[in-house]
Amino acid sequence: MSSVTGNKIKLSVFGESHGEAIGCVIDGLPAGIKLNAAKISREMLRRAPGRDKTATQRREDDAPHIISGILNGITTGAPLAAIIENTNAKSGDYGNISAIPRPGHSDYPAYVKFGGFNDIRGGGHFSGRLTAPIVFAGSVAKQILDEKGVKIGAHIAEMGGVSDERFDKNDISANLLERLSESSFSLIDTKRETDMRVAVENARLSGDSVGGIIECAVIGLPAGVGGNIFDTVESRLGAALFAVPAVKGVEFGEGFGFAKMTGSEANDCYEIKDGNVRLLSNHNGGILGGITDGAPIVFSVAVKPTPSISAPQKSVDLKTMTNETLEIRGRHDPCIVPRAVPVVEAVAALVMLDIIS
Amino acid sequence: MSSVTGNKIKLSVFGESHGEAIGCVIDGLPAGIKLNAAKISREMLRRAPGRDKTATQRREDDAPHIISGILNGITTGAPLAAIIENTNAKSGDYGNISAIPRPGHSDYPAYVKFGGFNDIRGGGHFSGRLTAPIVFAGSVAKQILDEKGVKIGAHIAEMGGVSDERFDKNDISANLLERLSESSFSLIDTKRETDMRVAVENARLSGDSVGGIIECAVIGLPAGVGGNIFDTVESRLGAALFAVPAVKGVEFGEGFGFAKMTGSEANDCYEIKDGNVRLLSNHNGGILGGITDGAPIVFSVAVKPTPSISAPQKSVDLKTMTNETLEIRGRHDPCIVPRAVPVVEAVAALVMLDIIS
Amino acid sequence: MSSVTGNKIKLSVFGESHGEAIGCVIDGLPAGIKLNAAKISREMLRRAPGRDKTATQRREDDAPHIISGILNGITTGAPLAAIIENTNAKSGDYGNISAIPRPGHSDYPAYVKFGGFNDIRGGGHFSGRLTAPIVFAGSVAKQILDEKGVKIGAHIAEMGGVSDERFDKNDISANLLERLSESSFSLIDTKRETDMRVAVENARLSGDSVGGIIECAVIGLPAGVGGNIFDTVESRLGAALFAVPAVKGVEFGEGFGFAKMTGSEANDCYEIKDGNVRLLSNHNGGILGGITDGAPIVFSVAVKPTPSISAPQKSVDLKTMTNETLEIRGRHDPCIVPRAVPVVEAVAALVMLDIIS
Amino acid sequence: MSSVTGNKIKLSVFGESHGEAIGCVIDGLPAGIKLNAAKISREMLRRAPGRDKTATQRREDDAPHIISGILNGITTGAPLAAIIENTNAKSGDYGNISAIPRPGHSDYPAYVKFGGFNDIRGGGHFSGRLTAPIVFAGSVAKQILDEKGVKIGAHIAEMGGVSDERFDKNDISANLLERLSESSFSLIDTKRETDMRVAVENARLSGDSVGGIIECAVIGLPAGVGGNIFDTVESRLGAALFAVPAVKGVEFGEGFGFAKMTGSEANDCYEIKDGNVRLLSNHNGGILGGITDGAPIVFSVAVKPTPSISAPQKSVDLKTMTNETLEIRGRHDPCIVPRAVPVVEAVAALVMLDIIS
Repeated sequence: MSSVTGNKIKLSVFGESHGEAIGCVIDGLPAGIKLNAAKISREMLRRAPGRDKTATQRREDDAPHIISGILNGITTGAPLAAIIENTNAKSGDYGNISAIPRPGHSDYPAYVKFGGFNDIRGGGHFSGRLTAPIVFAGSVAKQILDEKGVKIGAHIAEMGGVSDERFDKNDISANLLERLSESSFSLIDTKRETDMRVAVENARLSGDSVGGIIECAVIGLPAGVGGNIFDTVESRLGAALFAVPAVKGVEFGEGFGFAKMTGSEANDCYEIKDGNVRLLSNHNGGILGGITDGAPIVFSVAVKPTPSISAPQKSVDLKTMTNETLEIRGRHDPCIVPRAVPVVEAVAALVMLDIIS
Repeated sequence: MSSVTGNKIKLSVFGESHGEAIGCVIDGLPAGIKLNAAKISREMLRRAPGRDKTATQRREDDAPHIISGILNGITTGAPLAAIIENTNAKSGDYGNISAIPRPGHSDYPAYVKFGGFNDIRGGGHFSGRLTAPIVFAGSVAKQILDEKGVKIGAHIAEMGGVSDERFDKNDISANLLERLSESSFSLIDTKRETDMRVAVENARLSGDSVGGIIECAVIGLPAGVGGNIFDTVESRLGAALFAVPAVKGVEFGEGFGFAKMTGSEANDCYEIKDGNVRLLSNHNGGILGGITDGAPIVFSVAVKPTPSISAPQKSVDLKTMTNETLEIRGRHDPCIVPRAVPVVEAVAALVMLDIIS
Repeated sequence: MSSVTGNKIKLSVFGESHGEAIGCVIDGLPAGIKLNAAKISREMLRRAPGRDKTATQRREDDAPHIISGILNGITTGAPLAAIIENTNAKSGDYGNISAIPRPGHSDYPAYVKFGGFNDIRGGGHFSGRLTAPIVFAGSVAKQILDEKGVKIGAHIAEMGGVSDERFDKNDISANLLERLSESSFSLIDTKRETDMRVAVENARLSGDSVGGIIECAVIGLPAGVGGNIFDTVESRLGAALFAVPAVKGVEFGEGFGFAKMTGSEANDCYEIKDGNVRLLSNHNGGILGGITDGAPIVFSVAVKPTPSISAPQKSVDLKTMTNETLEIRGRHDPCIVPRAVPVVEAVAALVMLDIIS
Repeated sequence: MSSVTGNKIKLSVFGESHGEAIGCVIDGLPAGIKLNAAKISREMLRRAPGRDKTATQRREDDAPHIISGILNGITTGAPLAAIIENTNAKSGDYGNISAIPRPGHSDYPAYVKFGGFNDIRGGGHFSGRLTAPIVFAGSVAKQILDEKGVKIGAHIAEMGGVSDERFDKNDISANLLERLSESSFSLIDTKRETDMRVAVENARLSGDSVGGIIECAVIGLPAGVGGNIFDTVESRLGAALFAVPAVKGVEFGEGFGFAKMTGSEANDCYEIKDGNVRLLSNHNGGILGGITDGAPIVFSVAVKPTPSISAPQKSVDLKTMTNETLEIRGRHDPCIVPRAVPVVEAVAALVMLDIIS
């Protein structure tokens, strides 16, 4: 039972969707890092709700307030704690579902696990809102990685059935990753945005939601990074990515596509170029035997459709143990994929920083 | 850098493919468990090489020798250590590749990571052979889970382009899992075996190899098992599964299929049946918010094609830093998927035992 | 580099003495525990500064503000985060010592470790003030232990050369522990208080400080609690107690007194009494082979004299690398032993709760 | 329940006193370290039983057999596993005590903990024999530390009431530590050996045993090593030292002596010497705020008298729950302090290597 992760850089996340505040403690950061508040704000905005069309009225949301670990804007080496207040919570919207679990959400298993004592409002500690402190922590990690020449960027590879281009796995530029990681609707081929938005809007209009795929790349790491057997880069990233709500699949390089490939198609051969070892392809997504091979790390995650939909759904009342029909009211994203992009980047940044620290 | 995993049940794996022996230490097992040696042997045989046609000459292989933690066949509560001798290693076969990394293997990144001091013969510590102690440990875990009513079974969902039936995710019987977990070529629809074997044999004849998908199910767990945020069942299973060599993707329930689904298709609704909460479907693979919901846990892993192929491949000599053409000799599986099935089951057993201990 | 501890109950402590706030996150608490705010306040007061004579003006200090993990006063199973504001910090008092390390404090090694970026004011993250969130967390742990019949109490065994009675190790009542754990000057023989206070006052008047010994007992645990080799109750308690600032020694049972004993004097023999196994003595402090034997756990810790003294001391300026004479101004305890008593109890509670959870 | 320790260098210890073998796995060692087998043997001999007078018949004992992690005598970066066979076990000697716990040993709590399934012969997994693999692992750690200029040595500070000189804490030479760490009866003032041996022999002749104190020093570490709050050098060393059987107290620097000191006596002041910061004294044993200050690390441990004594002792039969009188036969050390010296050094080496890795 642990909202704590990491070996050398430990992240402890706390808070509940409709409680007083959420936040995190980052333990093990190096001292002497000058944090860029503007970059942190930008990351928070990428993840913040209501950014499209209707975004203006909630601009102030989700500003992390740092209460320790910083002196004159520079890390002290002590744990960095940050608080994000829950100013905008409207508990009333969720009043009628306290014992009627929303299908697809954690409500039912959490109710069982905690004997009904968990804060079910808005998903409580299991809410997607808890990704806000993760994005904050990831933004700090990104800044440290950036100084080491490590860049991370992700994009919406697929949403509502509309696909973006995929990374050219063996040739990913820092410029591309920078552009992706500054956008709030990250696409390699920005012309696909309209089609994607239409697909999502259609789902919204029919009271439904859609899923998608996020593809992420990390460049700038040398070969030889990662641990043995149980401590592979894939294990570390896999574990952290499955901590992101709604992520139901993780694959590296060709991933599930390997199932239909042959060894001669799948192997990445080597050559010497300019005195260095270079891979001729990158089907393995930059990781062999769990260790980086110097090519870009490329992985994808599957994001399930937002479980909160308007249509009536069969559920049960856990107190009376009777069948019920549930109608979810309140504001809900018809697709969380765009907002999950910075979360995936943040998680990747935290894991990679922990591995190389 | 860690070949150790687990919280309460810690598994430490050691050995190198062509060293004297491989083995493991399992720390934290309960005392008083009577181990069934026949079941352990059966699991080891499922994973052992050369089981098809040509299997007879190597029958004795891979018998784990338990040297501690057992008294009169019953666990003592002290760490259980087991050794598997490397009787059949033929280092000579690999003589010419000592500094020429095999594409698709860990050879190159491991060489960089360990400054050339790693035992490169047969992949050393990164060899698939290291899954033998994992299968041993998993067999012990399975026996303990079995007494608690938890059953695990996996099958070859796809190999060389030929598919098996998939689990009916919301209705998986103990009988089916038992049959799968006793087979050395695990299929739901056993009639697909011939086609699969033909596909693999064709790859072998052309000096190539094929990949596949393994689907695994766990039944018998109650709802409410699993941890918060970073300690989800998906994170724990994901981390451990990505430790299995050649696994490049992990998905739960519909996994990457969620990308094309809507919320109304993806959500698993509830009903009261016989006084209990029951899910009407199991698209989420038995896990919501990282916690079990009482439905079978169902996940799939992507297995890449065996990187060892006969065809000449471009590589480099890491000592002379010159381009080379590599031809791999020696015995190699054209597909490791059937042998990986018990490894996936073992990993699932170890993780689930650790979670519920 | 970690201010995080615990396996199942993880405690993450943050903050700096003169920063905005200090606090902690407790991860892994069971859901459904009704917290008693009065008990928490009482513990905080026992540790709070300025409780003697001059205490009145600072009564409001150190009230922890819980921001997550609680709903209607009952734990939810989500991480419990609490903040304590640093309302009373007077940074000015410490202005002149920013690069002149105070002898006996962490100032110099912390300066080296963090390259001068650490918040040196009042010791920063190494300040004894950081024991406030530990006492808060310990108070929560105590309440949970109390429901399981486990009681913890400590007393000032020695201070400024004046000794209290020691525990009768094999016969410690719940009443005694309750009395000790409710007092802000915990003594078995309360008549010693005057002598102790005189000794401390004498030290204060001469601008000096004194050390002492705290003895602690835990009752109510059954035999058989604790782990193997590296996870002994002594290892767990030892590690946590050495995390308390100024603690320089930890001993169990007779501790260093064993050095002068023989085996026949030191062994605790057994008898059957009322159908149960009973120890005839408790020289081992309730722990054998690292596991509880059913007798009270009894241990002592050595507390060094407060390093902050008024007398001029030789030090150096770390920026100019010149010799300096340091005079420490500001408020300082001539002895922290009484205030360290609840800290020792808190640490013991957190460790024991973690072990039995 | 864990015989595994360490963060970056993980040590997993296994085996039971009268089982087939004991051993360990060291995970996380750097690759490329050439191990000196002679140094390992010397360490093993220091710890081996029967070294005095009667030693000849058991010379071959306790040779660790390395089965992985080494190629041509050089570490590969894979886990290093070593086995020590239990060739000399005489289970017969212990036959009559299977359910009658020996006072002062782990027998009773281990029986309760493991429901009687633990291997009680010779203490099973709790036997002092399990320190043999720890000494082996420590010898490997020492060699790596040695290359980094870090030296460790310990001596018998007190045994059977006879004291050795203590370290001059602020002036400890590499030569002295080397001499101590090569001796099998380590003393600063070697003239005390006779008196100590007489004290032990007297105890032996009266069927009794004696305890003692071991003092250990580590030099060569720079200032600034160690972690925050819960990860102090004292916490790490304390936890590991309390894992050594019979250790019942740990103190750093003046330790329990601080209780009678004043701040002005206890503080270690600073001066600039040859351009470097130097401590004028070392009462704190090289650690302030849990971090090294550049002075030698000095700590002591209390070792209780060997619980195995010849005199009849009151005990109970745990199966019949009746009172019994126990007479322990077989070979027993009247004092384990000399043999515990290399164990304390080994533990210190493992901890310090883990911290600086």
